[in-house]
Amino acid sequence: MSRNSTFGIIGGDARQVYLAKSISQDGYPVFVSCLEKAEGIEELPSLSLKEISEKCGIVILPLPATKEGKYLNTPFTDEKIELDDSFAQLFENQSVYGGMMEKLYAASELWESIRTYDYYTREELMVGNAFLTAEAAVGLAIEEMEGALNGASCLVAGFGRIGKALCLDLRGLGAKVDCCARKTEDLAAIRALGCEPLQYRQISKCYDVIFNTVPAKVLTALPLSRQSRETLVIELASFPGGVDIEAAKRLGIRVVNGQSLPGRISPKTSGEFIKEAIYNMMEEV
Amino acid sequence: MSRNSTFGIIGGDARQVYLAKSISQDGYPVFVSCLEKAEGIEELPSLSLKEISEKCGIVILPLPATKEGKYLNTPFTDEKIELDDSFAQLFENQSVYGGMMEKLYAASELWESIRTYDYYTREELMVGNAFLTAEAAVGLAIEEMEGALNGASCLVAGFGRIGKALCLDLRGLGAKVDCCARKTEDLAAIRALGCEPLQYRQISKCYDVIFNTVPAKVLTALPLSRQSRETLVIELASFPGGVDIEAAKRLGIRVVNGQSLPGRISPKTSGEFIKEAIYNMMEEV
Amino acid sequence: MSRNSTFGIIGGDARQVYLAKSISQDGYPVFVSCLEKAEGIEELPSLSLKEISEKCGIVILPLPATKEGKYLNTPFTDEKIELDDSFAQLFENQSVYGGMMEKLYAASELWESIRTYDYYTREELMVGNAFLTAEAAVGLAIEEMEGALNGASCLVAGFGRIGKALCLDLRGLGAKVDCCARKTEDLAAIRALGCEPLQYRQISKCYDVIFNTVPAKVLTALPLSRQSRETLVIELASFPGGVDIEAAKRLGIRVVNGQSLPGRISPKTSGEFIKEAIYNMMEEV
Amino acid sequence: MSRNSTFGIIGGDARQVYLAKSISQDGYPVFVSCLEKAEGIEELPSLSLKEISEKCGIVILPLPATKEGKYLNTPFTDEKIELDDSFAQLFENQSVYGGMMEKLYAASELWESIRTYDYYTREELMVGNAFLTAEAAVGLAIEEMEGALNGASCLVAGFGRIGKALCLDLRGLGAKVDCCARKTEDLAAIRALGCEPLQYRQISKCYDVIFNTVPAKVLTALPLSRQSRETLVIELASFPGGVDIEAAKRLGIRVVNGQSLPGRISPKTSGEFIKEAIYNMMEEV
Repeated sequence: MSRNSTFGIIGGDARQVYLAKSISQDGYPVFVSCLEKAEGIEELPSLSLKEISEKCGIVILPLPATKEGKYLNTPFTDEKIELDDSFAQLFENQSVYGGMMEKLYAASELWESIRTYDYYTREELMVGNAFLTAEAAVGLAIEEMEGALNGASCLVAGFGRIGKALCLDLRGLGAKVDCCARKTEDLAAIRALGCEPLQYRQISKCYDVIFNTVPAKVLTALPLSRQSRETLVIELASFPGGVDIEAAKRLGIRVVNGQSLPGRISPKTSGEFIKEAIYNMMEEV
Repeated sequence: MSRNSTFGIIGGDARQVYLAKSISQDGYPVFVSCLEKAEGIEELPSLSLKEISEKCGIVILPLPATKEGKYLNTPFTDEKIELDDSFAQLFENQSVYGGMMEKLYAASELWESIRTYDYYTREELMVGNAFLTAEAAVGLAIEEMEGALNGASCLVAGFGRIGKALCLDLRGLGAKVDCCARKTEDLAAIRALGCEPLQYRQISKCYDVIFNTVPAKVLTALPLSRQSRETLVIELASFPGGVDIEAAKRLGIRVVNGQSLPGRISPKTSGEFIKEAIYNMMEEV
Repeated sequence: MSRNSTFGIIGGDARQVYLAKSISQDGYPVFVSCLEKAEGIEELPSLSLKEISEKCGIVILPLPATKEGKYLNTPFTDEKIELDDSFAQLFENQSVYGGMMEKLYAASELWESIRTYDYYTREELMVGNAFLTAEAAVGLAIEEMEGALNGASCLVAGFGRIGKALCLDLRGLGAKVDCCARKTEDLAAIRALGCEPLQYRQISKCYDVIFNTVPAKVLTALPLSRQSRETLVIELASFPGGVDIEAAKRLGIRVVNGQSLPGRISPKTSGEFIKEAIYNMMEEV
Repeated sequence: MSRNSTFGIIGGDARQVYLAKSISQDGYPVFVSCLEKAEGIEELPSLSLKEISEKCGIVILPLPATKEGKYLNTPFTDEKIELDDSFAQLFENQSVYGGMMEKLYAASELWESIRTYDYYTREELMVGNAFLTAEAAVGLAIEEMEGALNGASCLVAGFGRIGKALCLDLRGLGAKVDCCARKTEDLAAIRALGCEPLQYRQISKCYDVIFNTVPAKVLTALPLSRQSRETLVIELASFPGGVDIEAAKRLGIRVVNGQSLPGRISPKTSGEFIKEAIYNMMEEV
């Protein structure tokens, strides 16, 4: 079998395990590395980085490829893989797919001459992840609220991909949904979905649950002061999020961390979405 | 304030705590007993059973009132309250509301001459609980499946109150829903809801998740044998349920216990539903 | 081919035409009578009543079988078929299926000794028709309102089969739905569907559109007086309906007749529902 | 009252009548012109073009401003308003809002020095119209199909604004929805909405109803040849649309014109959307 269609999956979390299995089920040869502590990984052949470099024409790095920029993101191994020139050198003749690659690129100039692709820029992966995030946030709300979501009064802050998916899911479960946005066309679309459109400065009701999707401080002390101690706030935007945590603490309002939900709650579907994004990128090359 | 409109809430789980708080917020005097280990109970005055009997015209017993028929159902106290004649005697001049009262009635003949009401017979409580159960089951599925519910292939066994609510919730989240029923009118309604109607003997596909709501062995070895090891089965019917557990074990299929979900997941809304049922019964007397 | 499984379809409207075609497509021999002016009927062999009686073991009469009780309901022929003893005599050895048969039975005592079945008593037909009615009412509202249904404020009076289907359809189109009912369990279910439950005496808002499904005067002068001249009222209950027509006229409120919608708007699906009801009755005999 | 906040509405269809009424209800002075044959216009003061020019600081032209480029679009008057220099001159000191203004601009060079705004470029109007169009198309399908939409098998060609709204509405009514798109992210979103994603070349099933939203020939002879004579095709894309009309005729497939639906079916809401777009443009100036 040709080296070119042999996949090497290196590091990452449960998503990469499902990704590896799914590619293998599609009939391609797959080798893994730096995943030895992952559950269910034993059915796939494991290699060293050096061997991956020799055998695999297509290499898949984690999402994110690195957290702090110094080491590869490898929670399922005790080894630390440093992102130096000698690491980059391994992939000089490979097609390398990874997620959020900026910090990795910064770690070695060699990456400039390697064929790399960032699957986390793919719109289809973003859309898929948005629906996964919304669904997982709904599951979190069901579990964390003492009351029911059905019939509850909900606020969704933001009408991007995740906000849209949340409006649909919450309405589909019989909740009453207000949604904040800035753009007039978003306010029109929110109304059309059977939800109540609001400007951010108009947040004045007390809600049973608030979902923040905006990575800017939109849930400041003022709107928080209108909530009760029974209001649940779920933060979905990436760090530092959109909720004034200090104010929430002072007011006794519970804020639950809903960051990185797809990987935590739906690793299988997440892994499959990454796979599809990679396949689409391969076709387009 | 009149003894007649004073409520005494005795025993039970978190639902009774929310029930007590909610009645108190409605402006009625409320005393509690046998709930001392419950979180947040300290804001309500606690009395002995004897005092409840003296001060309260309306007494609310737990759901279920008793589990085994010998003691009151009081998980939030270390005391054991025996259901003998002297217990019944306390309530000779009260209106007593409780849930699933048969075993309690059997414990003393004195109950025959006491004004008792079983709130668990109320249709509005059943309907409310059905939606809570469906929502909680959806939350359980989101959490327990490695994949997403959105887009998943689901089977709902049974089209009673819970089955109906599940069909609506799952469809509302973008899942594909098949639903089994026996009656031709149910099959017609299932189709009209945008779901696929099936007779029980027609279960032949492999599903991502199966919800059983039928308290009779409908998920026998044959339909289970068509599932994969990744299929999740959620048992919602009361013990012994509708799933052939032995067969599921043999086939390596995971069965998750979803019994008594409303009390576990939504104690607040559950408590409020009980309150509304009791209010309705009081009005109808 | 056996006389017993030969169908004779006599009279009725477009539903019976589609019913006849659908039975024929299922592979059964079908003859029609008293339908000669119906569009598309020429592809089916037509017989006289006498010939139907000789050739067909199963006879299907219209829905309703008769309007005034004197003649068969035959809008697609110029002939008048009187419901006397000689008409009944034709079917002495047949299985006769018809809809709303009471007035026909009253026309001749001979019917007492004939095997007759009223398909309009079948619950699956009622459920199917309720969804057809709701959908057709939604179509009527879209067409008749000057504004949009999406985002509109709607009232559904009644939570029977049709009321339930309307709540689901309207919510599915992004409308805001209030629904009136009497029973506490219905109010609980309405809330759970994401709609607003109301008692009839609580109707106080001005709505964009009101759907009445209750065959009793629930929309009296008082609730009508709270509507505007732009409010559209759609009457779905059978004559005389639930709307005070005099009051509506006085107030300048437009009332649109939505009675008998399934036959008018969806004759094909209506005919297929009748067919399925008849098949189910045949199996159960 | 200041000339600057006085509105003059000139020509157009029923949308402009509702637009005029709605602005008047907001408390602004409103004069109309070239609308004398419109129903319900008598409650608003009518002026000549010259008088409008003198009294009104804000002038609203129709949607589209002109059809053929020579005359103003004025279906509600017998007068013909030529789009020459003397017409443009009337508005030298006005703010002029109109829809699809290109052909009007081409009719006189004077427009270059006049403050003009095209409200039909506004995203919020596009979004609002998309939902109106989808709803009206659903109403058309309910009326035109012999069968029911509930449970029907539907194809939506295109996943732009209108296609998205159609997917939501049809699913909300319990239909089965396939949707064609080209972009991989659209296919992901279609699946997430509970619909079936398809590439255009994959259309192979026979549908009960097909909605085209794509202004390019996507429904060619091949996909049409897979439909039955009972399939209904609704053309929503602007002329010449996406359906091969010749092929449809040959195959006996019925194509219904659904172009310009918002103005025809929901003039009130359409007019209000135009008003909101103009208000938003005025605020942003």
